[in-house]
Amino acid sequence: MDRRSFISKAGVLGVGAAASTLAAPAVADGNITWRMVTTWPKNFPGLGVGAQRLADRITAASGGRLTIKVYSAGELVPPLQSLDAVIDGAAEMSHGAAYYWQNKSPALSFFTGVPYGMTSRELTAWVRYMGGQEIWDEIYDQFGVQGFLSGDTGTQAGGWFKNELTGVDSVSGLRFRTPGLGGRVWEKLGATVTNMAAGEIFQALQSGTLDAAEFVGPYNDLALGFHQVAKNYYFPSFVEPGLATELVVDKKKYQALPEDLQAIVRDVCQAEYDQVASDFYANDPRALQTLGNEHDVNIRQFPEEILEAGAEAASEIMAGLRDSDDALVKKTAESFIESLNILRQRSKTTDGAFVNAREKYFKI
Amino acid sequence: MDRRSFISKAGVLGVGAAASTLAAPAVADGNITWRMVTTWPKNFPGLGVGAQRLADRITAASGGRLTIKVYSAGELVPPLQSLDAVIDGAAEMSHGAAYYWQNKSPALSFFTGVPYGMTSRELTAWVRYMGGQEIWDEIYDQFGVQGFLSGDTGTQAGGWFKNELTGVDSVSGLRFRTPGLGGRVWEKLGATVTNMAAGEIFQALQSGTLDAAEFVGPYNDLALGFHQVAKNYYFPSFVEPGLATELVVDKKKYQALPEDLQAIVRDVCQAEYDQVASDFYANDPRALQTLGNEHDVNIRQFPEEILEAGAEAASEIMAGLRDSDDALVKKTAESFIESLNILRQRSKTTDGAFVNAREKYFKI
Repeated sequence: MDRRSFISKAGVLGVGAAASTLAAPAVADGNITWRMVTTWPKNFPGLGVGAQRLADRITAASGGRLTIKVYSAGELVPPLQSLDAVIDGAAEMSHGAAYYWQNKSPALSFFTGVPYGMTSRELTAWVRYMGGQEIWDEIYDQFGVQGFLSGDTGTQAGGWFKNELTGVDSVSGLRFRTPGLGGRVWEKLGATVTNMAAGEIFQALQSGTLDAAEFVGPYNDLALGFHQVAKNYYFPSFVEPGLATELVVDKKKYQALPEDLQAIVRDVCQAEYDQVASDFYANDPRALQTLGNEHDVNIRQFPEEILEAGAEAASEIMAGLRDSDDALVKKTAESFIESLNILRQRSKTTDGAFVNAREKYFKI
Repeated sequence: MDRRSFISKAGVLGVGAAASTLAAPAVADGNITWRMVTTWPKNFPGLGVGAQRLADRITAASGGRLTIKVYSAGELVPPLQSLDAVIDGAAEMSHGAAYYWQNKSPALSFFTGVPYGMTSRELTAWVRYMGGQEIWDEIYDQFGVQGFLSGDTGTQAGGWFKNELTGVDSVSGLRFRTPGLGGRVWEKLGATVTNMAAGEIFQALQSGTLDAAEFVGPYNDLALGFHQVAKNYYFPSFVEPGLATELVVDKKKYQALPEDLQAIVRDVCQAEYDQVASDFYANDPRALQTLGNEHDVNIRQFPEEILEAGAEAASEIMAGLRDSDDALVKKTAESFIESLNILRQRSKTTDGAFVNAREKYFKI
């Protein structure tokens, strides 16, 4: 079956399935049912669960007038065709991460997270108050879609390593699963970087095809069992200081909604940004306790030498994007870097300084 | 005029004023208009503006079915009677901060922020995923109201000091405006603590009645002009690592709303939590740049000795609340402290470690 006929068949099936779950009067009232494709496996902790919850909240807040039917990764289209599904009209919404679509524009990475870039709080400050959303809109307007932030994992874990890291030397030749711009940083540090789907990582670590793998953080990683095949868990992920998810909506269809429904979609996405972040902030440290106490995982901080070399590599990559020939990539990188250099002052003098003082002095 | 007759007259005026702003068909449809009293001055940056925006978003998302009319501090009731106004039925909603109602229960401080307590991200993790909301509901059920988080300033500034601080000795006898539990910490450090309304601080600093004053952070403080009368601006506020605002709603009236309107109130509050935090994270560092570059303010970090003595004082106060005879205060403090000790692991090993590494190594 080719992709288009798969989309078309699954699409029809999807609408039927969604409609059958609606109460009859609701359908008679002319309610709208929209399809949301996602890049996440069904019930994937934090992110997949969040996509479903976002859909349910829109349905609830609209009293069913806008009912969202969710298709997890592969159910309607393969995960990495979710954005295309919205562009092609096979779905009205896609829940994923903007950096999956780097082939459409490398600028999209900035709306998910980049090496040594913004934390989750800094990202919303940029997007909502420092021109980020307007640039994002300019990028997505080319494809007829509208993006909204819809969640964030916060700063991630640095990865699982079979052997302890002593410095940059120990990175050399390391077969490491780490995708995207983060992978490019590790490549500059000497690793042999590969990407593979979540479901294949465990086996590759077990068989020795991989020496190391980075995925999300304790909450997700515990569920995937990496601690059974690698014992050194490094923090923090300086290449993923945050990972924001997005809801992408067909822009014409969105703008054709009544204004109250447009407001509901926008408000629920923003509420979910907070909900998903809260979920990770609560459940990551709980999972980390389990990993340390029950599974004898060595919880380690990266050696300073690696943090330093990583920063230099990240700086080169960011500068490369800022010097891009693509005007929109250049503009995005410039806005991001300028804003980061303002925002980091608060993180350093206020928020970071508080956390440092609390760790040093406050016992209870 | 006594308070009750003032409330009653203003209340009637309020409803009339709100109704007159509605389009006639909306009223005919049986739309509901609710009064929101707030503890903030009109157009107060971040917080007062946020209360108005929250009201407007509920009105918009409900298509006017639930229209919220905002009364800023003193317009309908004095600011510190906002919660009572909801309890008495003079308003349906109050926008403020839970720690203003410590006379009703000292446990309420924990839902705003306490010395050396939770950051804004940690607070939502506790409230939404670690039992915080359930305890908060138990406290507010005694008064027939329902609380929702509705914003956060993030970690605040430590305050404006006329003279440089060299250590704990220089705190002794200092006449310092700093309210609440934070004030109790500074008292233990030797300061002579007073509270006064925002509008009186400037003059008291100027006339020498005060040696120091703490308010919010650069975004708010710049607007109030404290830099003209005190030149040393200290960071971070270890006594206010976050300040969460709340929306309080009459619980019976809330539960009597149709489910979609209940969802809209809940969702918009959560969206606003993110919006207000983004506003402060974007605008605090911009204001701090202005203060440093254009107003010759000395931006300083507290001496380690003060951070350490402050931690000891905060620990005593928190332990006192945990040992309270009031079962609900004890339960709140125990839940908060247990959760904080889990959450701080993530802040230290992951988020804090990232910010530290970025400051140390990342230049762009």
